[in-house]
Parts: sequence; C-alpha cells; structure tokens
Amino acid sequence: MSSFGTKIKLTVFGESHGDGIGVVLDGVPAGYKIDMDKLLLQMARRAPGKDKTSTPRLEKDFPDIKSGILNSTTTGAPIACVIENTNTKSGDYSNLLETPRPGHSDYTAYVKYNGFNDIRGGGHFSGRLTAPIVFAGAILRQILEQKGIKIAAHISSVGSARDESFNPTVISDELINSLNESSFAVISSEAEQSMRDVIEQARKARDSVGGVVECAVVGMPVGVGGPLFDGIEGKLSQAIFAIPAVKGVEFGSGFNSAMLKGSENNDPFEYKNDKVVTTTNNSGGILGGISNGMPIIFRAAFKPTPSIAVEQNTVNLTTKQNAKLVVKGRHDPCVVPRAVSVVEAMAAIAIFDMI
Amino acid sequence: MSSFGTKIKLTVFGESHGDGIGVVLDGVPAGYKIDMDKLLLQMARRAPGKDKTSTPRLEKDFPDIKSGILNSTTTGAPIACVIENTNTKSGDYSNLLETPRPGHSDYTAYVKYNGFNDIRGGGHFSGRLTAPIVFAGAILRQILEQKGIKIAAHISSVGSARDESFNPTVISDELINSLNESSFAVISSEAEQSMRDVIEQARKARDSVGGVVECAVVGMPVGVGGPLFDGIEGKLSQAIFAIPAVKGVEFGSGFNSAMLKGSENNDPFEYKNDKVVTTTNNSGGILGGISNGMPIIFRAAFKPTPSIAVEQNTVNLTTKQNAKLVVKGRHDPCVVPRAVSVVEAMAAIAIFDMI
Amino acid sequence: MSSFGTKIKLTVFGESHGDGIGVVLDGVPAGYKIDMDKLLLQMARRAPGKDKTSTPRLEKDFPDIKSGILNSTTTGAPIACVIENTNTKSGDYSNLLETPRPGHSDYTAYVKYNGFNDIRGGGHFSGRLTAPIVFAGAILRQILEQKGIKIAAHISSVGSARDESFNPTVISDELINSLNESSFAVISSEAEQSMRDVIEQARKARDSVGGVVECAVVGMPVGVGGPLFDGIEGKLSQAIFAIPAVKGVEFGSGFNSAMLKGSENNDPFEYKNDKVVTTTNNSGGILGGISNGMPIIFRAAFKPTPSIAVEQNTVNLTTKQNAKLVVKGRHDPCVVPRAVSVVEAMAAIAIFDMI
Amino acid sequence: MSSFGTKIKLTVFGESHGDGIGVVLDGVPAGYKIDMDKLLLQMARRAPGKDKTSTPRLEKDFPDIKSGILNSTTTGAPIACVIENTNTKSGDYSNLLETPRPGHSDYTAYVKYNGFNDIRGGGHFSGRLTAPIVFAGAILRQILEQKGIKIAAHISSVGSARDESFNPTVISDELINSLNESSFAVISSEAEQSMRDVIEQARKARDSVGGVVECAVVGMPVGVGGPLFDGIEGKLSQAIFAIPAVKGVEFGSGFNSAMLKGSENNDPFEYKNDKVVTTTNNSGGILGGISNGMPIIFRAAFKPTPSIAVEQNTVNLTTKQNAKLVVKGRHDPCVVPRAVSVVEAMAAIAIFDMI
Repeated sequence: MSSFGTKIKLTVFGESHGDGIGVVLDGVPAGYKIDMDKLLLQMARRAPGKDKTSTPRLEKDFPDIKSGILNSTTTGAPIACVIENTNTKSGDYSNLLETPRPGHSDYTAYVKYNGFNDIRGGGHFSGRLTAPIVFAGAILRQILEQKGIKIAAHISSVGSARDESFNPTVISDELINSLNESSFAVISSEAEQSMRDVIEQARKARDSVGGVVECAVVGMPVGVGGPLFDGIEGKLSQAIFAIPAVKGVEFGSGFNSAMLKGSENNDPFEYKNDKVVTTTNNSGGILGGISNGMPIIFRAAFKPTPSIAVEQNTVNLTTKQNAKLVVKGRHDPCVVPRAVSVVEAMAAIAIFDMI
Repeated sequence: MSSFGTKIKLTVFGESHGDGIGVVLDGVPAGYKIDMDKLLLQMARRAPGKDKTSTPRLEKDFPDIKSGILNSTTTGAPIACVIENTNTKSGDYSNLLETPRPGHSDYTAYVKYNGFNDIRGGGHFSGRLTAPIVFAGAILRQILEQKGIKIAAHISSVGSARDESFNPTVISDELINSLNESSFAVISSEAEQSMRDVIEQARKARDSVGGVVECAVVGMPVGVGGPLFDGIEGKLSQAIFAIPAVKGVEFGSGFNSAMLKGSENNDPFEYKNDKVVTTTNNSGGILGGISNGMPIIFRAAFKPTPSIAVEQNTVNLTTKQNAKLVVKGRHDPCVVPRAVSVVEAMAAIAIFDMI
Repeated sequence: MSSFGTKIKLTVFGESHGDGIGVVLDGVPAGYKIDMDKLLLQMARRAPGKDKTSTPRLEKDFPDIKSGILNSTTTGAPIACVIENTNTKSGDYSNLLETPRPGHSDYTAYVKYNGFNDIRGGGHFSGRLTAPIVFAGAILRQILEQKGIKIAAHISSVGSARDESFNPTVISDELINSLNESSFAVISSEAEQSMRDVIEQARKARDSVGGVVECAVVGMPVGVGGPLFDGIEGKLSQAIFAIPAVKGVEFGSGFNSAMLKGSENNDPFEYKNDKVVTTTNNSGGILGGISNGMPIIFRAAFKPTPSIAVEQNTVNLTTKQNAKLVVKGRHDPCVVPRAVSVVEAMAAIAIFDMI
Repeated sequence: MSSFGTKIKLTVFGESHGDGIGVVLDGVPAGYKIDMDKLLLQMARRAPGKDKTSTPRLEKDFPDIKSGILNSTTTGAPIACVIENTNTKSGDYSNLLETPRPGHSDYTAYVKYNGFNDIRGGGHFSGRLTAPIVFAGAILRQILEQKGIKIAAHISSVGSARDESFNPTVISDELINSLNESSFAVISSEAEQSMRDVIEQARKARDSVGGVVECAVVGMPVGVGGPLFDGIEGKLSQAIFAIPAVKGVEFGSGFNSAMLKGSENNDPFEYKNDKVVTTTNNSGGILGGISNGMPIIFRAAFKPTPSIAVEQNTVNLTTKQNAKLVVKGRHDPCVVPRAVSVVEAMAAIAIFDMI
C-alpha cells in the first residue's frame, strides 16, 4: 500500500510521467496555521535542477492544495495536494520495457504488475514521488515545531567524503535552522567542497555515488513510543525505508554498538537542571522503543542511484537473452543532497504519527 | 501496539514475571500440518540456560496451545498459545523502581506508564517476550517451507569476532538446515570459538557484548513487496526493530553501498537456466521494495545487553539526585546467539505477511 | 479517518465549496480494463440536477484521473481522481456559522473542529463527497463483474410509497442491468409515480422525505467473510453507514427476523443443479458472517435530508440564546433516488475489499 | 480477522470445545483500577445455565488474567485473559460434519476452511466467544464510567412481546444501574413475564425465538466521531454485527426515519442549563457521524438462534443428496436476554476506541 500511519494517514499517488502526483494527509487536527513560504522552501530543497549535483530536469513542483486548508489554516478535513507533471520527456525511456536497468525496479515491477505498470520515468517508483512526501512533512513539521519538536538532517557522507557528526547530546537551534534552509546541508563547510568534488567526479564518469544522511529529532517529550511493534525505531525505519534507495537505517551508535561492551554503550543517567538526561547518547534517544528526551539520532544509507550512463549487462525479457544496456535520459549523479529534506519529512511524518 | 501484520495479525502479550506470556496469531489459513518437534526445537534454540553464554535462569517455555490447531493441523481460527512464567525471582529487581538501569527501558517505561507498569524482570519489555514470537515464527516458517521459502540466520559477529558472510547469490539447503538446528549458529566453525572467548571474557568482567546477526530468505518468488510503504525493507525492518536491543538494520550491501559507485553497486542481470538472476546481490534481493528472486539478505545490529553487574551512574527518581547502581540478578553476557532464532522468526512473520 | 479497507484502501478528500474533491483508490491490481462510458454513467446517476426530485445545483462532476490508469487499464499504482468544484454559491450558507441547522452536522463539526472546518456547502460532510465514492465503486464493480459478481439496488420506499422487494433467491441479469442504468431505480414501474408524488409533495411543502434502498450482490462465491469482526455484515454496514443520512442497515429478514421463530427463519439447504442452495433467503446470503452463495441482500434506511426551508428552532452559538432558522440554498427534497448508485458503489467497495 | 479497533486492539481467540477461549486487549492505558467483582457480575449476566431461558450447559467462565493487570490496576501492557473450556460434550455434534444445520455457519465455514475448522460446539463461531468480549467490555466500561460515560441496554422485544423504549433524551442513573445488574434486563417489569412466556413457548416447541436489544450510551462528550468512515454509526455497527445472530442495526429513529418528513425527524436545538441540547432525539445522539451530547441510542435485531430441535431440510455434503436433520445438544431457545451484556460490552469497546 502507498499509505502510512495510524493516527494520521498519508496516501501518496502518482506516476512520474502521468497527469500528476500528489498526496492525501488525513488526521491533521483543525486550527493549525501553515506558513506557505516555509512549506515551499522545503519543496525547493528537494526539487532538482538547482546545480550540477542533480538532474537537469526542471520541475516547478507547485503544490495545488485541493482541500483541508482554508485561509492558511487546517480545517480538519484531509489535506489533499496535486502536483502536475510537466517537462517530462517520455521518449527517453522506451527501451527499458524489454531491457530492465540493473539496480532499478524495472524488472521486479514488470513481474509484479504483469507489464501493465507505467514505466515512463520510473512510474510510481520514481524518486519524484518524494515531492508530495516533502509537502506532507513540511506541514507536519510546522505543527511539531509549535510543540517544541524540531527536525534537522545533514549529509553525513558522500562516497568517502565525510561531514562531522551531530553532537549527540546537544544540538543548537542555530544549527537546526541553518540546516533546515540549506540546499546542501552539512555541518562542516569544508565537507561540502569535498562532497561536491566526489559528485562531480561521478557525474563526469557518467556514474553515480551513494551516501549517508544523519537526522536528529530534538525536543521529543519523554515517553513516546512503546515496546515491541510500537517502538520508535520500527516506526521510523518503516518510514525511512520507504524512501527510494535507502538500504540501511541505524539509531544512536547503531552498527557500531555491536562492537561495544555494555559498559561502553550504556548511557549513564544524571540530573541536569532538574531534568533526567543521559551523559552520552549511544541509544539515539530511544530506550525500550520509547523516547528518553535526548535527541533521537539516526542515519540512513543511500545506495548510489542505479541510473548510470555506462554500459551495463542486463537481459532482454522479450528475446530471453543476455543483453547490453546504456541508459539515456537525465539523472542525478547523487541523490543524497536532495534526500536530506525527504529524510526530514519522513521523520516528521513518523514522529507526528506517534505523538 | 503489541501487534503486527496486515494479512496475518500477530499479538504478543505478557510480562516477564506475571502469570504467563503468549501470542495470538490470526489469519493463518486452515489445513496446514504443523510439526510440533520442529516447533519445539526452535523454541529450545532461543531458550536460555543452555551454557555459559546465557543467563542461568532455566525456562521450560512450553507452549500451551489454546486454539487454532487441532490434530496438529491449523483450523483457520486464531492460534493462541500461553507460556507460563516459572522460575521467576522477583526479589532481584526491587531497587530498579527508583534507580533506573542505564541502557534499559526502566526510565522511559516509568514515564510512559506513570509507574504502573510491571517492572519485575523487565515486564512487557523483557527479552522473554521473544519466546512467543519464536513460537509464531516457527509455525509460519513451516508453512513458508511448504511454499519453497527457507530462512536461515547466523551470528555474523560478536564484538570483534567475526564469522564468514553468506554467499549472497547461492545459499545451500545443507547450510540452511545446519544453521536451523544449531544453538550457536555460525558458518565457519573457527568463528564459534573466538566468539565464545569474547563472550566469556565479557561474562568474567561482569560486562556484556553486542553483535550482528545476518539472515537470508531463500526461495522468494519474484514480485513480492511494492514501492513506498509497501516495500520489503520497510516491513522487515519494522519487525526486526521490534526485537529488544536491535539498533540497526541493513539490506544487501547496506551501509557499505553508501561508499560505492553505481557501477560497482548495481547487480547485472543475466539468464541462468532460463531464469533471470543477478550476478552479484548488492541489492539484498530487493529492487524498488520488491523481491527479485535472489536471496533476501539483511543484517541486524544488537547492542550489548544493558544489564551488567558493574557499578553505573544513574539517578534516583524518588530523591531526584544522582545515584550509583549495581544490577543484581541473572543476565546474558551476550544475547546474540539466542537472538538468531528470534531474527529468523521475525523474518518469517514479516515475509508471511507479504505473500 | 476518511479511509476504508484492508486489501484495498479508499481515501476520500475534499470540501463541498473548496477547490476540488476526489479519491485515491489503492490496491487495485494491474491489468484491468476500465470502460469509461460505464463509469461516467454511474457518476451521472448520482449527479444532481436531472429533474425536480433533486437540487437544481448543476455539477459536471467530471473525474480527472491523475494516476493509476493508463490506456484505460489499471497500472497497479494508486488510482487518483480529482473532481473540480464548480457552480458553488457560498454566500447561501453564511448564517450557519452561528446558527447550526437541526439534523445537520453543523453543531457537532463546530465543536469537533473548533470552528475551523470549512462550513460552506457542508464542507467535508457534504453529500457531494459521495461523487468520488461512486467513481471508485464504478471501477471496482467493473472488476467484480469480470469475476461474475453483480450489484444492483433499487428504491425500496420513499416515505410511505413502496416498491416491490427483490425476489431474495433469484435476481435476473435483466433486472440488474435495467436497475444499473436507471436514474430512478425501481422494480415496479407503478412505484415510481407514487414515489415521485411523495417527493413533489415534500418539495412543494419546502420539506424533505426519507426512504429505504434495497441492494443485492449476486454471484458471490461461497466462503467469503468470516466470524466475529471479519463478517460480511460488519464490513458492509461500516461502508453503508459512511453514506450521509443512513441511520439503519439490515440483512436478509433483518429486523423482521426478531419477530420470527427459528423454524420460520432458518433457510433449508437443498441441492439444485448439483449446487448447494437455500430454498429461502432470510439470512440475506450470509451465515456466520460468511457468504453462502445466495444473493446478499440488505436494506439501508435514509433519514429525510435535514436541509429544509421551513422555519426551525435552533440556537445561536455566539449569543448563546435560542434562535429561529430558515435555511436558504438549493436542496434535494429527497436524496434516495440519487443514493441508489452510492449504495451500489459502497457495496462494491466493501465486497471488493473482502475477496 | 478476529480483531477490532484502532486506538485499542481487541483480539478474540478460541474454539467452543477446544482447550480455552480468551482475549487480548491492547492499548488500555496504565493506572486504571479495575473492580473485579463488577467485572465478574457482567460475565455472570452473559453466562448460560441461570434458568430455563438459556442452554442448560453450565460454564464457570472464570477469566484467568495472564497479563496487563497487577494489583487490580492496569499496567499498560496488553491485558490477556484465558477462559478454560469445561463441561463440553463434543459427541453431540458429530453428525454436523456432513449435514450442515440450516441458519448456522456449518456450511459456509466448511467451504471457507476446507473442512479443517473445529466444528465441535460451533468452534470459533460459537456464541461462547462472546464471553471474552464481555470480559474486555467490562474492563473498558469501568474506565468509561470514570470519564462519566455509562452504557445500558435492555431487551426491547422477544418475538411479539415488547418492553417500553428508552426515553431518548433523558435516561436516569437509577435505570442504568438497575439494568446493568439485571440478568433479564427490561424497563417495564410487566414486559419480563410476557417475554418469558414467549421464550418458554418456543422452548417447549423445541423451537427458538428472536428479539431486539436497545442500547443507550449516556454522557458522551460532544465531538466524538467524524464524517464518512469515521462515523460513530459505522464503528458501532461494525462491532455490533460481530455478535453472532445480529442481522440489523439502527440508530435513533432508524428505519422509522425513512417514513418521516425532515420537519418531523430533525431534532431542534435549544439551550438548557447553558448547554446545547436537542428537544427530541431522532438522530440517536449522532449528527454527521459525530456525537452531539445526547444519549446515543441504537437497536440490534437478533435472529432466532438457528439451533432448533425440530426436523429440518438440509443436504448431505458427502453423499451430495438432500437430507433431513434433527439437531441434538443443549441450546438456548432465546439468546436475547444473555445478549444484553454482550451488546453493552461491544458498545463499550467501540466507544472506547473512538475517544
């Protein structure tokens, strides 16, 4: 199903080269003021065409709100938004019908949908479907902010180029605001140049490169989530893995914690300004599936986008023989910079659904 | 909620030192024969007390089936099973009421449940709740096997001690069967000794150690799963993160794929015995959230169990002052060997729910 | 939530005088041919403005399909459709903000949404929201027909004017087809005139009148549904009560069965053409929540539409005093004729979700 | 699925002559005191064997609580309860395997479960499964009472014998309390005798008789529920139709409203003690799917129990020929008196899930 959530219900629709894409966001309470400029800023952060790190396809991505918002205020009815598909060049994708691209959903979708799926531009599998997700997330994070919960992510790495990590116990409002407005969100400004170099190198080689996004949710009340299937990790990971190209998710010290001793990994409690805090944050702000009031910190690994322009081995599903493929069309050499706002949006959606 | 699934519905109940724990598994079709010996073998693999790697608490863990199975055959009604709690020593845990253990759910549960939760033995947060999950998984994997789908996991690492990885494209029935019967499941027999050494070292230091479990689902039909929130990664990760102590989940090349180029990470297609296969399996058998017929391969990172017997800093919630804590009671120095069958069970549950 | 279903997921959005209304229908398998003329015919049956029985507001109600259908064939992606709101006269409703209409949702919605809901034209509560439901049902019933399942409803009564009942054991294709195309669906042509008289009388008195719709689902396979919360009655009633103005739902002999003896109400089984049938159909085709292969027959009671033009007692929520109200605007004296296709659509949606 | 609810999750398990039946109730907040005597009283009201109106089968129906309640207080963990099956005489049912009882689920269950379902005593379809539902409802209504919401039902009719109706606008605490403790709940004491006569007559004729239960939910806050699929009517009807033998549900003036004019059926608003009330209550306390603060009133029609001891026509599924059947065993001539507490319990469950 293309929907998510229990307290809210998010339903995403559309195909990359169809008439339009969009989202219905149900369960948002009435009476919240939505700042449209802040919303459009988030959508612009995800939109491609800003520079050489992304696909030259220009999308206006203007969200046409059909219902649920009146006078910039939520009405309590489902919020529905349609984004028209423009600037599509469907001719580019014609040979994919019989020769599926390695690493892409062409083959698996072909089997699942018996060849009836709209393959143009990736159809319902396109990264373009993250635009309505950013729209929905941009609404929910404005409401979360009114409750004191802020979300920020940055590019942790692109290939071998790395940014600093979040300080896991203290993340300043200043850093959050600066990341939230950036179209290439990094903590250390030196990291940006080395990352851009890695991306440019991949672009010139007609190749692509992966990366990691690190995300923090700051200001969580204590006691959200629950044991077993109600845990924050499970809910957040379900949302984050819905982003195309994500192949790993970890919380706090994550995979590294598997190398540690309990005495190293446990976060001691202490009172600080009459509040219970932990002096370290290896748990990523989550104990027993429940928020402990420290920043929730997680990382999502993005594989390199599979659409590359070098020749690859594949099969021809019609002739049932091995084949060679060179993918044409406009592609991102690295989706990670644009994915930052998508990760933030998904985190907002999952967190909102839990509180 | 302590429940999971759409086509099936798994509901886990119980508290570690209460009257009993158990599970209701709804949606299992009628007419499947269940081999009780195979089922009990899986429960025995998870049960503690087998050797020095685990807690000396002996549990019989006998599943008392209340409904849904008649003459060893599923009736189509919900399968309900109760496991009595015996051999509990609740006195051990009394001081945790006011001084929460670092790394454990004591503090967050205290806040969430206003102090009304059953704290004895971890209550509803106890790793003991994985026993009914193994029960449910043991039923579902028997049905999956009748459909040609097999699941096997092994201890990939304990601290710095490592096992071989699965060959991601070919996993033999022989290896699967041998892992499925092992109480210390490793591919390389040399790995076992070094892992046992690491665990024994932690036990002697009254400490604990984490590790990684790698799991493979072999024989998946092509076309299971879907885009966005219907993807296999999201569904599996939601189930795997419900296991206490899991802090990271990755599929295929996972976090390593973030370091790769597209040309390195894409898995070329080829025809092999008239079947479409990939020559590598960096995708972990999943493209666009949908199975491609290759083994589904994922890894789960387990943090070191937080229950350690060394002195730790914590707080006293009654006096609202910083405090020291030494946890008494019987604890696993490493939960990873016992977690192998839990990971397999959860994978069975999630996969069954998708097909 | 404005959504329904487990195997399919229907999400309805929109407000009567907002930008547009619509629906997302997720979970429809790929590869089904949809006949757009048949679909538009169903939408036309529901649309108002055909004659004096309904509101003179003319709506074009053209469904703009955004995704999920390509070349008149389902792609497997969510089917999204937007219907623009045109011909709205919002000025008519201004006084309802403080003086809620008796029998309408004005007061309860005001409390639930703190006054932020879009009250114009009934907002999200408008009967107009049934247009996207008819759209979704029209798609699903075409697929059901390809599986041999047909759905037909008729106006069973309007006020005291009554149509014949369905023959509960045999309903001909001829009757089904004729009802499916009719904009005033009755079995007995004499019934139509007496019903129109009742409606015209109500219209002239600036009043409204209620009625009953009887619906049959023919060609159900045996074995659909289940006990307890999985029963057909529960699923269908949940869908039917979602139609504005429905206040009662009964299956088979329904409320009349409460007057009967078991020996009168039980439907004897017999073999007919090697098939198990029942000689009567007091059960309405459902035993133990499960279809028995006979026609599923149910009736839905519609209260008279609360929007009437006579003076009524109400309150003024601003002055907190009792008040008088005369509702202006364009209203149906009887929604029942138009509701027939809505009941059929809802039945199609609920039945599709179960098979 | 044998489960219900969104905010709470109720899962019912068991087969009539299996090892045990029970329920898991998830989502109940921690810290609510549960009065076990009041709980057992409700279970006793449903239990059979009290007098000649019900089956002579004696059930102790003692709820063995496995988890979720400690020191008579909810812990926040799922509440699980098992009721052992005792006093079962399975031999009575042997001939039903091939000759399904008219009006019962034997045939439809046989087809759905391919003959693998546990047919003894009705298996998972048995009215006995309402015992755990009453258990769950008894917990939830205690919590609702702490929030000022009370639920009471009475036998509205048995065959042609009728009780008074609730005064739809004012229902006294005295009446509620008296009904809540009664094992034959009627408003008018004269009604009881005529109903008992009708039942006794049916019993002597080895027949059965149906009836209607009327239920009121008093003290609802304004603003609960919502439009479309979120309406109170849909939610309540889904729960009520899950009770075996219910074939009709209506709210307020229900089917009668279909005979009325809008000017007759609309409930005028007025201020009374500074509160908005309606002077009549034809809406049954629900406008636009949302509570308006007046008593929620609904009626459920129970068909006569199909288990009768007179000879009936049926089929032999083995020989594939028409057959005669005389059902042996112990049966209720009328389930309606015992159903009163089941209706109240289901109402409590559905209402709790909405607030």
